[in-house]
Amino acid sequence: MTDRREAESFVRQFHHEQPDAGDVERRVREVLADIDRTGTYAHTPDELSFGARVAWRNAARCIGRLYWRSLVVRDLRDVTAADDIAAHCFEHLRLAGNGGRIRPVISVFAPDRPGRPAPRIVNDQLVRYAGHRTPEDRWIGDPRGAASTARARGLGWKRDEDPFQVLPLMVEERPGALPEWYEVPEGSVMEVPLRHPDHGWFAELGLRWYAVPAISDMTLEIGGVRYPAAPFNGWYMGTEIGARNLADAERYDLLPVVADRLGLDRSSERTLWRDRALVELNVAVLHSFQRAGVTMADHHTESERFLRHIAQESRHGRPVPADWSWIVPPVSGSTTPVFHRYYDPVDTSLRPAFLARGR
Amino acid sequence: MTDRREAESFVRQFHHEQPDAGDVERRVREVLADIDRTGTYAHTPDELSFGARVAWRNAARCIGRLYWRSLVVRDLRDVTAADDIAAHCFEHLRLAGNGGRIRPVISVFAPDRPGRPAPRIVNDQLVRYAGHRTPEDRWIGDPRGAASTARARGLGWKRDEDPFQVLPLMVEERPGALPEWYEVPEGSVMEVPLRHPDHGWFAELGLRWYAVPAISDMTLEIGGVRYPAAPFNGWYMGTEIGARNLADAERYDLLPVVADRLGLDRSSERTLWRDRALVELNVAVLHSFQRAGVTMADHHTESERFLRHIAQESRHGRPVPADWSWIVPPVSGSTTPVFHRYYDPVDTSLRPAFLARGR
Repeated sequence: MTDRREAESFVRQFHHEQPDAGDVERRVREVLADIDRTGTYAHTPDELSFGARVAWRNAARCIGRLYWRSLVVRDLRDVTAADDIAAHCFEHLRLAGNGGRIRPVISVFAPDRPGRPAPRIVNDQLVRYAGHRTPEDRWIGDPRGAASTARARGLGWKRDEDPFQVLPLMVEERPGALPEWYEVPEGSVMEVPLRHPDHGWFAELGLRWYAVPAISDMTLEIGGVRYPAAPFNGWYMGTEIGARNLADAERYDLLPVVADRLGLDRSSERTLWRDRALVELNVAVLHSFQRAGVTMADHHTESERFLRHIAQESRHGRPVPADWSWIVPPVSGSTTPVFHRYYDPVDTSLRPAFLARGR
Repeated sequence: MTDRREAESFVRQFHHEQPDAGDVERRVREVLADIDRTGTYAHTPDELSFGARVAWRNAARCIGRLYWRSLVVRDLRDVTAADDIAAHCFEHLRLAGNGGRIRPVISVFAPDRPGRPAPRIVNDQLVRYAGHRTPEDRWIGDPRGAASTARARGLGWKRDEDPFQVLPLMVEERPGALPEWYEVPEGSVMEVPLRHPDHGWFAELGLRWYAVPAISDMTLEIGGVRYPAAPFNGWYMGTEIGARNLADAERYDLLPVVADRLGLDRSSERTLWRDRALVELNVAVLHSFQRAGVTMADHHTESERFLRHIAQESRHGRPVPADWSWIVPPVSGSTTPVFHRYYDPVDTSLRPAFLARGR
């Protein structure tokens, strides 16, 4: 049953921020009557778009919120079959990829309804690399993909030894049902091979990364209605790949490899070999995406944009809740202006919102 | 008037953690009787040492707490004249400097008593460099020292054009009284000239930094008793100098200078010239202190130590409140283990504590 107060509060917010949207009282009456009659209500396409964009605006961990108004909202609420969801997710990747000029896109599939839970996407991102531990206790691929890899294998998917093998998309038509799985078509996954502007050997490492980071395991909640299948993407900030995915000891753990190729002295932490390798890895990521014509932000520029976003929101009288530990980049934190201030506190009751989904 | 509950609670904590300290009930009665009679009470030397050490243990912003038990506590509670305070502060710097093997030291001067507020040290650190803005809007020295520089000049002190000129120590015998000022004797200030292990030109920049960071504007509160003059020091973590003092745009702002000397392309943020210059500046700081035989921690090692501290405290059943944004280093955050976890929440009511002093 959809919460009546959440529904009313959202409709009023929508009309407050969109004064041309018509008679708010009539719409509130309509929504509440629908809830009383059916247990829920349906958003208008405008409400859906507004709701999804404001959920982005409210995302306290996202540094890229300056462009929240530009989110492309795909209204796919009538899509419920696993095959169709998968096909639309692959189309999402192509639309978002846009030949390299990445666009922020969200694909909103059917919401949960009373007695009729909606389909779910099992993967945490539409594109993610498989990972598994060898009998010799070595990792091949992305440890972050290990659970999905095991799940997919259990469903009959075959992994290989490629450290950058894209996982299949897994869709549950009903929660708890056995997922259907689909290989992501080659044409839907844009990838960038990584090279370094000054070091030829870097290309020999055979690294690459995908262009479109699309989160697919968060529930979009708007006005009390929950959309559990609502994958969304922005574009990458370089450090997400260069300082976390490829560098974290729990992920691809490449700092020692890069440091050795750079000829750095790893006998002591005081040589700052980690820090030097980290910077060069990040240089390679930014350089390679630019060279490939794929949108990517650097952490300095994105930090400036975030402060512009705060200024802009402040002119609208709106706070910008932000989680310092997510906003400050994982490399050279204090060289970015976002380091040197505090933010409006995170408010977990804020809606619309993207919510972590318990699995 | 000293708070009775704070006093009792501290005495009980002291006896709980020091079971050999004697009869706790007798000491509680004694302390409460003293408060009733005189408005306050005097800590025993053991209570003072314990209180100062636990105040360090409770400092949520400090990554260096593993060694809290080793704090050297100087009991100078009978010292109240400005001249004597200054002389003892200079002695503090020599003791803490210890020929390069830095020791954590606190010098506890007289506490506030009812109707008799204690002396204060005006400076925020015992050693800090002067800073002023030229008529051409250029900074000479440390902008962070600007207010103290202006204050000292108002008292008759003469600044020069050295970017690393040590400010005089200013002591107020009574709050609001005109401070006395004292040049810090040469023998009390240990400084390290900065050079880079690979780049000879680095020494030409003429940079240096002092060895002993001694905070002098926080009030030590133990069991309801406030010690407003209680300067304390640890040793530096390299990033404090290399990533903040020398690098912050609001401080010495040296990243563009270092980047130019390194021959980096500053035409775009995407070259990560800031990040590269930052690492080399930090390499220089660590290298120079080591070469000079002066204790300094690197951020990787200090992060590991902090996690050891948490494990150790946990064995004693004690939480370790920590402020993530202060604990995670300002450079290469995600390469340090402290980045990848959350901490016990900061508890501002925790005592004993070092408290910010409103000026």
